[in-house]
Amino acid sequence: MARLHPLSGFPEWLPQGREVERHLIRTLRRVFTLHGFVEIETRAVEPLGDLLRKGETSKEVYVLRRLQDADRTGYDAKTLGLRFDLTVPLARYVLENAGQLDFPFKRYQIQKVWRGERPQEGRFREFLQADLDVIGLGQLPFHYEVELPLVMAEALTAMGIGGFKVRVNNRKVAEGVYQGIGLGPEQAEVALRWVDKLDKIGPAGVAAGLAGEGLSDEQCQVTLSLAAISGDDPAAVACAVRELAGVAGAGNASLEEGLAELTALLDAGQRRLPGVLTADLKIARGLDYYTGSVYETVWLGQESLGSVCSGGRYDSLATAGSQTYPGVGLSIGVSRLVSRVLALGLLAPSRLSPAAVLVAVVDEPSRAASDTIASQLRARGIPTDVAPVAAKFGKQLKYADRRGIPFVWFPAGGDGLQDQVKDIRSGEQVDAAAATWTPPAADLRVGFVRAGELDH
Amino acid sequence: MARLHPLSGFPEWLPQGREVERHLIRTLRRVFTLHGFVEIETRAVEPLGDLLRKGETSKEVYVLRRLQDADRTGYDAKTLGLRFDLTVPLARYVLENAGQLDFPFKRYQIQKVWRGERPQEGRFREFLQADLDVIGLGQLPFHYEVELPLVMAEALTAMGIGGFKVRVNNRKVAEGVYQGIGLGPEQAEVALRWVDKLDKIGPAGVAAGLAGEGLSDEQCQVTLSLAAISGDDPAAVACAVRELAGVAGAGNASLEEGLAELTALLDAGQRRLPGVLTADLKIARGLDYYTGSVYETVWLGQESLGSVCSGGRYDSLATAGSQTYPGVGLSIGVSRLVSRVLALGLLAPSRLSPAAVLVAVVDEPSRAASDTIASQLRARGIPTDVAPVAAKFGKQLKYADRRGIPFVWFPAGGDGLQDQVKDIRSGEQVDAAAATWTPPAADLRVGFVRAGELDH
Repeated sequence: MARLHPLSGFPEWLPQGREVERHLIRTLRRVFTLHGFVEIETRAVEPLGDLLRKGETSKEVYVLRRLQDADRTGYDAKTLGLRFDLTVPLARYVLENAGQLDFPFKRYQIQKVWRGERPQEGRFREFLQADLDVIGLGQLPFHYEVELPLVMAEALTAMGIGGFKVRVNNRKVAEGVYQGIGLGPEQAEVALRWVDKLDKIGPAGVAAGLAGEGLSDEQCQVTLSLAAISGDDPAAVACAVRELAGVAGAGNASLEEGLAELTALLDAGQRRLPGVLTADLKIARGLDYYTGSVYETVWLGQESLGSVCSGGRYDSLATAGSQTYPGVGLSIGVSRLVSRVLALGLLAPSRLSPAAVLVAVVDEPSRAASDTIASQLRARGIPTDVAPVAAKFGKQLKYADRRGIPFVWFPAGGDGLQDQVKDIRSGEQVDAAAATWTPPAADLRVGFVRAGELDH
Repeated sequence: MARLHPLSGFPEWLPQGREVERHLIRTLRRVFTLHGFVEIETRAVEPLGDLLRKGETSKEVYVLRRLQDADRTGYDAKTLGLRFDLTVPLARYVLENAGQLDFPFKRYQIQKVWRGERPQEGRFREFLQADLDVIGLGQLPFHYEVELPLVMAEALTAMGIGGFKVRVNNRKVAEGVYQGIGLGPEQAEVALRWVDKLDKIGPAGVAAGLAGEGLSDEQCQVTLSLAAISGDDPAAVACAVRELAGVAGAGNASLEEGLAELTALLDAGQRRLPGVLTADLKIARGLDYYTGSVYETVWLGQESLGSVCSGGRYDSLATAGSQTYPGVGLSIGVSRLVSRVLALGLLAPSRLSPAAVLVAVVDEPSRAASDTIASQLRARGIPTDVAPVAAKFGKQLKYADRRGIPFVWFPAGGDGLQDQVKDIRSGEQVDAAAATWTPPAADLRVGFVRAGELDH
């Protein structure tokens, strides 16, 4: 084992980093569970035939080969590849188990995904994703398009790492407007693809691109004006879109349905989580895939990360014969959040060891007595470690101190004396009995401190 | 997505199965944490150079290739493969992070591993493993060889799926005896490999095998007699071994050290978890790899599964220059346990949905009122779902009933009436306020029932 360098793109955390990651995961689980979602896990692999169905993802897939087949080349639809998201596996899982699931199927899933990208720009090749979806059988009411982003926003906020803003759009709005200005379905897709580059190349770049695709000046103008509309006020947003559509001679069923959904979503957001949902009509990612609401989430103060949680409504996650499974869902890139939290020191565990108590060992022959004390404490739910070596007490205290274990327990030995427990932070040492002594509730479990608080 | 058949060897559970799996994982975490172990996760991949170091595992490794490299053949030490256990990654992680870890490093790890086996005999190609290890820096006291199997036994027992027996042996005992009857190190390894087949081919088969390797009748006899020694009584076991060694003219430092360790382990076991540890001197698996204690664990009543949790002491998990990292650890095959628990119906969640309450929806325009009630309940930690459609109440009750949600909440509407909540098991319906009503503690979270109890 000579290589001691981490593999680029495959992040690993020290135990204290994993503790932070678990805190984020626990928060997600707690909020998802409060809302009645069940958890599933799926296998790491899917046949390439399923993974490549959408076509354009091919370059990101890791293909598996058994070592003794390493000289085989090529692949077919049955060759196994590692999942690159949790949506393809969900669609397959739903079809495979449809008869045994209750619909609407409210599920969450927190698992690793893999992307065989060249290591660059700090992109991860293995990362943890947390997906939340509701899948309907044949139909799925619109109100889930409201519930899902709100549950996600609640979960993200509950992490205690700052504020989040969910930017929303609706495919039907863009569709309606584009249709009104005479763009056919293919041109509309092209227009969306250019709008998607807005943040990168700016309005002038997009205008040039759209003109190059054959759009008229007016069509370019309306497309850019639509993408410029944003804001928290549902009425104002709807008004701006209608004004634009009116000017452009648009106004149609798709547009009105889209605006009704968009304003209903923003209204509910204002009522249930004020200040979190905001309209942003330049969101175009996934608009060729999603069929209604789309969501992107920015972490306030960490905007450079881009969207940390995205998703939308899809009318057909999966189909089997004439049966369709519409859905709506969002996906959090957990590893990116953890990585940023750790890099900035936003959260840290209050101690390295889960133990609240270290039982000292007087000498090796009496280790059994220390073990007994530890068992008594653990039986009452108090995480307890025992000193590794019967060294001088100073060394044993140092073991506790290095791991942040707040209490050290000194066995009395057999001479009728009382055991004692020392709070190594205050130095206070008192008589104690393993059958009854309890640490303060705040010291029982590992807590989390925010960066600023660490310095105090 | 035409293929609707599960992939052989890649187990997946329905949501209720995953709930059982999580119950087992939670139990492991709780017990490991009570004993002061920290958690780590490692990446799914390791370079083949590290994975194949032990040589014989080559046929089990899945090699990764990016899809656009699918026509490339062969591999080198840097080619990535999926981990087949959690020990190789632990060794690499310890070396990579040695400067930032505190030793002895007490860690647990619960992650999937992959083995590229042909699907046969119900073997899994992807499964969840839970590993518990202590790693020392340069040295590691013997008492951890006592602690580790006891923590594992406590964790397994706490799962509530039955009893477990940990069978223990010590490499030094066999080494000492073999040395005493004149077997060299290589012959000793050969002998161990034959003894390992004892359960499969019986004593006569092993005797024939040993004879075929050139062992004398007496050497065969002693080897088989040693393998036949087992029992809970430390003194009796030691006595039987010494008698055999005496007859064979053996008796040496290795034997005495091994017997001292074995009896210390059994003594501590009897004191701390009576009836769980037992000596079984035919345990030979890993004896060529482990250097002291070895462990195998049988699930009482499910002996056909073989060992569900194995491990041992290794004097050198990893080395860097002159620095060695000795360790002791055990590994549970969690997926095999879950699979058996589900197949036998030993444990089942008390309900399918985590929700304790379903808030009914009177009509779609009043959904916001139902959402508000749900928010109030969730804010007080009560998992709550809202009816998907404002259907007839009978249908909404059925939604709750199918998912085992015990309470259905009926909003009063705006006419000054009180909300009501119905226990759908008893039919009892009472006035309730969302700001104060609380379900019985037993209904708050999903519980687990054992198979027999399900029928009552």
